[in-house]
Amino acid sequence: MIEQRRRFQGGRHPVWMEEAFVCMIDQRALPHEEILLRLGSYPETTAAIRDMAVRGAGSIGVAAGFAMAQAALNAPASGFLEEMERAAAHIRLARPTAKNLFYAVDRVLAAVKETSSPEQARQRARMEAQAVAEDDARMTQEIAKAGLPLIPAGEAVLTHCNAGWLAYPGWGTALAPIYLAHEQGIRVFVYATETRPRSQGAKLTTWELAQAGIPHALLADTAVGFTMRKGEIGMVIVGADRIAANGDTANKIGTYSLSILAESHGIPFYVAAPSPTFDAECPSGDQIPIEERDEREVLEATGRSAAGVVESVRVATPGIRARNPAFDVTPAKWITGFITECGIVEPQPQAIAQFLDKRRHALLR
Amino acid sequence: MIEQRRRFQGGRHPVWMEEAFVCMIDQRALPHEEILLRLGSYPETTAAIRDMAVRGAGSIGVAAGFAMAQAALNAPASGFLEEMERAAAHIRLARPTAKNLFYAVDRVLAAVKETSSPEQARQRARMEAQAVAEDDARMTQEIAKAGLPLIPAGEAVLTHCNAGWLAYPGWGTALAPIYLAHEQGIRVFVYATETRPRSQGAKLTTWELAQAGIPHALLADTAVGFTMRKGEIGMVIVGADRIAANGDTANKIGTYSLSILAESHGIPFYVAAPSPTFDAECPSGDQIPIEERDEREVLEATGRSAAGVVESVRVATPGIRARNPAFDVTPAKWITGFITECGIVEPQPQAIAQFLDKRRHALLR
Repeated sequence: MIEQRRRFQGGRHPVWMEEAFVCMIDQRALPHEEILLRLGSYPETTAAIRDMAVRGAGSIGVAAGFAMAQAALNAPASGFLEEMERAAAHIRLARPTAKNLFYAVDRVLAAVKETSSPEQARQRARMEAQAVAEDDARMTQEIAKAGLPLIPAGEAVLTHCNAGWLAYPGWGTALAPIYLAHEQGIRVFVYATETRPRSQGAKLTTWELAQAGIPHALLADTAVGFTMRKGEIGMVIVGADRIAANGDTANKIGTYSLSILAESHGIPFYVAAPSPTFDAECPSGDQIPIEERDEREVLEATGRSAAGVVESVRVATPGIRARNPAFDVTPAKWITGFITECGIVEPQPQAIAQFLDKRRHALLR
Repeated sequence: MIEQRRRFQGGRHPVWMEEAFVCMIDQRALPHEEILLRLGSYPETTAAIRDMAVRGAGSIGVAAGFAMAQAALNAPASGFLEEMERAAAHIRLARPTAKNLFYAVDRVLAAVKETSSPEQARQRARMEAQAVAEDDARMTQEIAKAGLPLIPAGEAVLTHCNAGWLAYPGWGTALAPIYLAHEQGIRVFVYATETRPRSQGAKLTTWELAQAGIPHALLADTAVGFTMRKGEIGMVIVGADRIAANGDTANKIGTYSLSILAESHGIPFYVAAPSPTFDAECPSGDQIPIEERDEREVLEATGRSAAGVVESVRVATPGIRARNPAFDVTPAKWITGFITECGIVEPQPQAIAQFLDKRRHALLR
């Protein structure tokens, strides 16, 4: 285990700062190796976001906030704000889909602009970035409480990709109610989908669940319909990368298919996400940019060989091509509800607007 | 390329006999290695079916028929029929789901019982097993013609697992109309799903399509909903392992999910299969046995390493468990039609019964 992993605000944190370094668990190496990255500058931290050493909406946001703090620490006093704007623009380009990245960058930038000297700004940037992480952790605790009563008795919960504390600092989003149920001695069984092509379910969700001692099993993405048909799944919970004002939700590729399968079997389909993942400026899912990633992710698989070496093997026929959209959009109509830090929010525009208003007022107080 | 691959009856054959040997392309090694197996006895051939050196409904059936021929060649004259019954029982246990296995074993056994001496029976078994393979190839040619008019212009065809000539000798089932379209100069684009856990789409379907020069791309199983939503897919065609009297269809795990996704997007969903895959004795999908395979298939992935070695890597977290159902059942209601050697058959009991009656009469003539 990585000793340095911080446990501020109760939950667990995959990204934190130590002096001028951003530290993170390299999620690309899990579950086979536990590697700690120490990144000395905001371009390095941005590269780590882009290359998916850190992934998951909240964790991307926290890393981006810390990258802004690094930018402030290293920016010269003359032209300080211009340098911060440049850094913000650079960090925003790291990944296009997750709302939290933009939320964190904007929040640190706004805080910096309220200060009257570079020295003050540096301190303030660091504090604000840390506050993003701590607020996130608090919000996931609230999500845990809000989702707890929804956990079905005697039936499994299905989750997709990874939406635990690796993805969202603190308690995670989709896994937060599951962690709380387990802590309270409620019997809960989780099916984790493999989530090709990057297999975050097989590599990260099962790693988190195994560490926490929560009973679970892995399913190939192809086996979901079969398992639902058998009546074994009582609920689907997933996280989100960005939620539009109308409730359309971008999340890991495959989420949309799961929502249709859940609907077809009459299984509740919940999206767990706190307010920073909601994008009031984005009217619907059609406006959410969907990242297409390198086709090699689909053509290959990565794991530990019999010799103990972690490596990628080419699964597919040599020379062929693949398509690799990283996210899809689930229309609001297939979503039963959002599990947020303010309780369950209905997947319709007014309810979402009210929730976000309430949160804005809470922050202003 | 394996030189010995036979091309009888026009199509291509993954399994054939040479003297007393059953020869087959080892499909576990494709696309990275082309290995030819020469199996000297019916227990060896049965083991090759069980261990999936040969897979796909039709190819399993042909291999089982040849295994029966081997049993006849090696059975002693005294107690000949008892030995044939023993062999049939042994071969039937190789895999539980595919109907063609039982069809081929029964057909060779019935042929043997019509003879009056072991010597005559040996010759007859060999001829009947060969006839199974040749009839199969002819039926896939008819499927190609029946399916051709359904190929959508300007939209892609999605297929799952592998239902080409590796799976069904001759022209395959799902791929048969695609091969014919391509041969006739009709533009056709195929999306092949990866088909975890064994990745037959990534390894076998793309290998077949690449060899034939048919434009195609690989999709992760998770990317199907997204691609349908974008309007890129005009038709789904899959093969089948067994079709019940009411039209419920057992096929590779994930087929059921695809049928729901197709229905939800208004995309025609066809099952291509000839009469030997239909099981008139089986009233509905509930009676089709579903094989559960080793969980390692889900926990691991197999491919070629950078060093050029074909190996399995452990993808999933060490110590965790997985579920691995190998097939699922698509209810008749989600199937647009069956593409058979007698044209399109509606997915309802009378139409299926009429089709099978017609086929029985054709065989009796």
